[in-house]
Amino acid sequence: MKYDPNCIFCKIVKGEIPAAKVYENHKYLAFLDIGPVNPGHTLVIPKEHYEDLISTPDEILDGMLNDAKKIAKAILKAVNSDGFNLEINNGKVSGQLVPHLHIHIMPRFPNDGHHLFRQGSYKEGEMQRVAEAIRQNLK
Amino acid sequence: MKYDPNCIFCKIVKGEIPAAKVYENHKYLAFLDIGPVNPGHTLVIPKEHYEDLISTPDEILDGMLNDAKKIAKAILKAVNSDGFNLEINNGKVSGQLVPHLHIHIMPRFPNDGHHLFRQGSYKEGEMQRVAEAIRQNLK
Repeated sequence: MKYDPNCIFCKIVKGEIPAAKVYENHKYLAFLDIGPVNPGHTLVIPKEHYEDLISTPDEILDGMLNDAKKIAKAILKAVNSDGFNLEINNGKVSGQLVPHLHIHIMPRFPNDGHHLFRQGSYKEGEMQRVAEAIRQNLK
Repeated sequence: MKYDPNCIFCKIVKGEIPAAKVYENHKYLAFLDIGPVNPGHTLVIPKEHYEDLISTPDEILDGMLNDAKKIAKAILKAVNSDGFNLEINNGKVSGQLVPHLHIHIMPRFPNDGHHLFRQGSYKEGEMQRVAEAIRQNLK
């Protein structure tokens, strides 16, 4: 099992530092974020240490979204919310603070002060060029 | 196969309206968001119509995060980005605009003007109460 002795989430997995755990199975652990967007903001992590989504093997990811769904359902009931944002930040440029893969599940409430990303637009022809570049990199 | 004739994403799946597609297999379709946070902003959807993450069966979700990872890798190369935000909005209160499950993959760049959610804090004892309520709802 991959483990990084300097990783705060690995220390939570090992029980070396405390966390408000809400779910655990053989692959994943879920606990409350100590800096919540709203009460009930939960992090779901693989117990093994992988830095980000890109570097996590398929076999570790298999079932993670299903478990996140199950946990999200319980969060909505627990805090009486009608919806949530699920987010994975990958890389420093994205705002990822702890380099151990984690899924944020953030319950939302009307007029809670949060807002989505600002959307932009493509210049003429740019969308087609970008799509083609992605397709080429998927080959 | 579940299909909603009034759903814009179902129409894209059927080829009834155009989209800049970047990936397709038997379960999922990925195409560029027409209002991108940054160029390369991609949506990954199941071909079957399910309103949101909560209502999507496990067998449809199985493999979705793995495919999103594969697509994200290609996006980063295509637009020369070092990281991304992956987001699922579930429910109107979360900002979900199209009621057909979709994963946003948004490549990020230094100083691109986007920012993360604002984090808060728990009052004394509140964190433990919330965690217990979630655990009860997972039983």
